[in-house]
Amino acid sequence: MTDFFDVVLSQRAYRSFSPDPVSDAVIERVLTAATHAPSAENTQPWAFIVIREPELRARIGELTQRAWEGGGRQFSADRLTPAMLADVHQGALGGVSAAPVLVIVCGDTSHCVPAVLEASVWPAVQNLLLAATASGLGSALTTLATRFGEELREVLELPEHVQAMAVVPLGYPAKKLGPPKRLPLSERAHRERYGKPW
Amino acid sequence: MTDFFDVVLSQRAYRSFSPDPVSDAVIERVLTAATHAPSAENTQPWAFIVIREPELRARIGELTQRAWEGGGRQFSADRLTPAMLADVHQGALGGVSAAPVLVIVCGDTSHCVPAVLEASVWPAVQNLLLAATASGLGSALTTLATRFGEELREVLELPEHVQAMAVVPLGYPAKKLGPPKRLPLSERAHRERYGKPW
Repeated sequence: MTDFFDVVLSQRAYRSFSPDPVSDAVIERVLTAATHAPSAENTQPWAFIVIREPELRARIGELTQRAWEGGGRQFSADRLTPAMLADVHQGALGGVSAAPVLVIVCGDTSHCVPAVLEASVWPAVQNLLLAATASGLGSALTTLATRFGEELREVLELPEHVQAMAVVPLGYPAKKLGPPKRLPLSERAHRERYGKPW
Repeated sequence: MTDFFDVVLSQRAYRSFSPDPVSDAVIERVLTAATHAPSAENTQPWAFIVIREPELRARIGELTQRAWEGGGRQFSADRLTPAMLADVHQGALGGVSAAPVLVIVCGDTSHCVPAVLEASVWPAVQNLLLAATASGLGSALTTLATRFGEELREVLELPEHVQAMAVVPLGYPAKKLGPPKRLPLSERAHRERYGKPW
């Protein structure tokens, strides 16, 4: 038994993993949680590709690295703290693809109109991340590799109506991290109208 | 203590609420969970407006009803089961706005680039829905009223860089619902490449 609020308040991005394998049973529990998220008209317009093959993970790692070196790093360099930049940097240069499992989360527009696709897929991603946390796994929501949508389509044999939206690494953490840092509620929540802080 | 997997597997859309009030302490716990979701570069580009005032809720109820009658119903009529259509219909015609609390979830593009806004806001919405479930509240992810973005901007006094993305009703359920219906994992999850079912 894992307390819901313990999970939700401790979830954060992991980009360094132990090589210990993750069992099918754990993956299945995590995916079952993901597919219990809500979606527009309950269309469930998601597809999860679970990758263990080292060559496939390496291909995705190459795309991630290329996206980072070809603009991602420059885009983020001025805005992240040095510690966060260093963590994302090592993740993009191999930390993420070294996870024993990569879950490629895709959206499928044969099930819903494109306008509601994001609202219908990101909640499932969040369930996936939380369920990973509840199972003792590290995980992260990464999107760098999705800049190379056509390359991912080829590697993963995605049909035209399916697009890769996120790459979520799953693995036991190399090192357990503390709770995430967030602004006080009063800076993001309002009463009745915008501008009256909670 | 509330088991994580009990919460995630039982969350579903509620559109009928008891009039019993929801305390500030419960709202605060639910919003704290929401703001612990991940976001691009940890920019936390969300704003939550918590509405209790009956007149404001009625205004949002009017917009919801207008969106439903002005196209939403027609769009959904052929695709929803009769039971689901009836539930959404009563929700749009007053069920949702009768909840004692409406949380308007907004995205704020002064904190991040628009391209990553949805990936950074919907996970927080999912945390909100799950935390509501864990707290014994009913909730739902609704977007009908957001078709009237300019009207919502005026009612909620939103600045230009803030846009309403969802209306989440919160209240104690009029009637407890069973678990949600989902496809088997093999229809949405694949091994290594698309087309090899899990």
